[in-house]
Amino acid sequence: MTMYRTLSLAAVFAVASWAQATLQSPEVSSDHHVTFRILAPKASEVTLTGDWLGATPAPKLSKDERGVWSITLGPFEPSIYIYSFTVDGVSIPDPVNPRIKLRARTSASLVEVKNDTPAFWEARDVPHGTVEINWEKSKAIAGETRAIWIYTPPEYAKTTRRYPVLYLLHGSNDTAAGWTMAGNANFVLDNLLAERKALPMIVVMPFGHATPFGVPVPQGGVTNDALFEDYLLKDVIPTVEARYRTSRGRENRAIAGLSMGGGQSLRIGLAHLDLFSAVASFSGAVPGDFETRFAALLKDPQGTNKQIKTLWIGCGQQDSLFGRSRNLSELLTKYQVKHIFHPTDGVHNYTVWKKYLAEYAPLLFR
Amino acid sequence: MTMYRTLSLAAVFAVASWAQATLQSPEVSSDHHVTFRILAPKASEVTLTGDWLGATPAPKLSKDERGVWSITLGPFEPSIYIYSFTVDGVSIPDPVNPRIKLRARTSASLVEVKNDTPAFWEARDVPHGTVEINWEKSKAIAGETRAIWIYTPPEYAKTTRRYPVLYLLHGSNDTAAGWTMAGNANFVLDNLLAERKALPMIVVMPFGHATPFGVPVPQGGVTNDALFEDYLLKDVIPTVEARYRTSRGRENRAIAGLSMGGGQSLRIGLAHLDLFSAVASFSGAVPGDFETRFAALLKDPQGTNKQIKTLWIGCGQQDSLFGRSRNLSELLTKYQVKHIFHPTDGVHNYTVWKKYLAEYAPLLFR
Repeated sequence: MTMYRTLSLAAVFAVASWAQATLQSPEVSSDHHVTFRILAPKASEVTLTGDWLGATPAPKLSKDERGVWSITLGPFEPSIYIYSFTVDGVSIPDPVNPRIKLRARTSASLVEVKNDTPAFWEARDVPHGTVEINWEKSKAIAGETRAIWIYTPPEYAKTTRRYPVLYLLHGSNDTAAGWTMAGNANFVLDNLLAERKALPMIVVMPFGHATPFGVPVPQGGVTNDALFEDYLLKDVIPTVEARYRTSRGRENRAIAGLSMGGGQSLRIGLAHLDLFSAVASFSGAVPGDFETRFAALLKDPQGTNKQIKTLWIGCGQQDSLFGRSRNLSELLTKYQVKHIFHPTDGVHNYTVWKKYLAEYAPLLFR
Repeated sequence: MTMYRTLSLAAVFAVASWAQATLQSPEVSSDHHVTFRILAPKASEVTLTGDWLGATPAPKLSKDERGVWSITLGPFEPSIYIYSFTVDGVSIPDPVNPRIKLRARTSASLVEVKNDTPAFWEARDVPHGTVEINWEKSKAIAGETRAIWIYTPPEYAKTTRRYPVLYLLHGSNDTAAGWTMAGNANFVLDNLLAERKALPMIVVMPFGHATPFGVPVPQGGVTNDALFEDYLLKDVIPTVEARYRTSRGRENRAIAGLSMGGGQSLRIGLAHLDLFSAVASFSGAVPGDFETRFAALLKDPQGTNKQIKTLWIGCGQQDSLFGRSRNLSELLTKYQVKHIFHPTDGVHNYTVWKKYLAEYAPLLFR
């Protein structure tokens, strides 16, 4: 047998060019600035979209003589941010950044700005729980085998006890992977548990798009909200309770979500207080018909307050949805329904939501 | 409280344009043709890269009057394929396809061409195992908390028994998610188990890049192969055996991998027959120095044959790496080392590798 030459990566895996193959993007500096780069010599305009930008217009990148477009922004608060490039009108993830924000349709990229000492959302040297992908043929959504992402606490495999469950929902154009891959929900929980700030719990993260994302529901058709509710009740909860050692009863179930998922948490949670005892909306798409939809709950505040252990509403004041949360809080106050209203700094992104998770989880199942 | 208007998705989630937001790509026809589309009105050339194309030059897409570039190819053998666009020299995933092929650097897209009746690699209506993401701070790779993806069979949570373990490695520029998200290893195993063709096993899928992917190792530095071996032995195996109910001893450990991972399986597996009793290379990057590296094994075929229960070498004949597998088989034959050489049709892709997994797994732990 002759000696083989060392395998050339380029021979097996085509890359557009050596220049693209060696480009570094994003580059995070020690002072928390980020340089975004894309090699696109023939493009006439490149802009950046970022989940920290809020209503700020998309910044334009500048092109150098090699055809590399770049921009340096910051300093950033340490976090994980979502961004994408728009190259001559085409919105794309960063071609050379392996950290992808999976979405229901248009994928983007992730950039992590780390703290010097790992913060509440970063991987610390503590016991880690696992996130388990469970597939199950759906009863509610014909023909689909869907994945549910489920966090189990570090101690789960070592005990025989049962655990309470937080159902944790994502936003529009996100996926069941979002809370893990962009929100670090698993590390947030690991760190809370290591500090004994929260009780051990299972966190269930289903896929919140039950109808095809981006396809308008035909007149009279089943809405995503309705079909997702059906899916959660008929598929997700029974699957979780069959496969995992879960504590039963409404006291041991909470539901929370962000943006679209905040709306779903309110709609489903408050309509099923037989199933859930705690409900939270993070920057939620609060139902526009809340006052009529939940008239019975609002008209019996004493009964409602007895049933709901924690009704939690958080939103960033720079978030375009902030008015919805503030109005909801005012409505609940008017009807004397107990709740926690938590307005904070922040726009519509996981930088805010992982803080909310870290503040909300410690309140649960006490 | 006033009624809210229905939330406009576009108001919250910026999209490059309505045209991009409504474009369909990829579109799979009932006769297994696939149309790939991208809206890029200002581009001057768009080509397609696909893992089924082998050495075929990248096909060019045609532009219509709206600026949508498209191409229809096929018919395809049902499978999951990896593809990307190159727009004026920039290699990108399909901007509107949510199924992303995660990679160590340059992400791509996935298109699934389904069978009418679910094949051996598709989700059937059978019990499903879970794939669990385990994070652990690495001892071998300083400063990294790494994720290991681990398949447990459907019965795992319902028993207290121990299971043998297959360590299943991915290729270059892939990730720990590859065997699950592109190779459907979980469904392949589910289906084999439902048909009682394989014994229940745990399948461990670590991240095969130990040194930063794409960054040349400095002269005299630790190679990826060496550091990955260290990682597998010092981190992965101990973590798996501490967290999971695994059967111990070499009879209960097998190692297999594709491409770069095939090379790793041979290098690590055959160097540690105290740990592994079965070794497989799928389209493997067979070490060029095999004959000298494993001289001791080759010179004692009786002893070697007694130790190795299954040495399995598969490769597609249209794969540019085919010669390496064929030469390895010839070498082993010359030295009278027992092995299975399995040349098949196929190029260098998961369409081949999931078939190999389905053929190899049934041989294990008997």
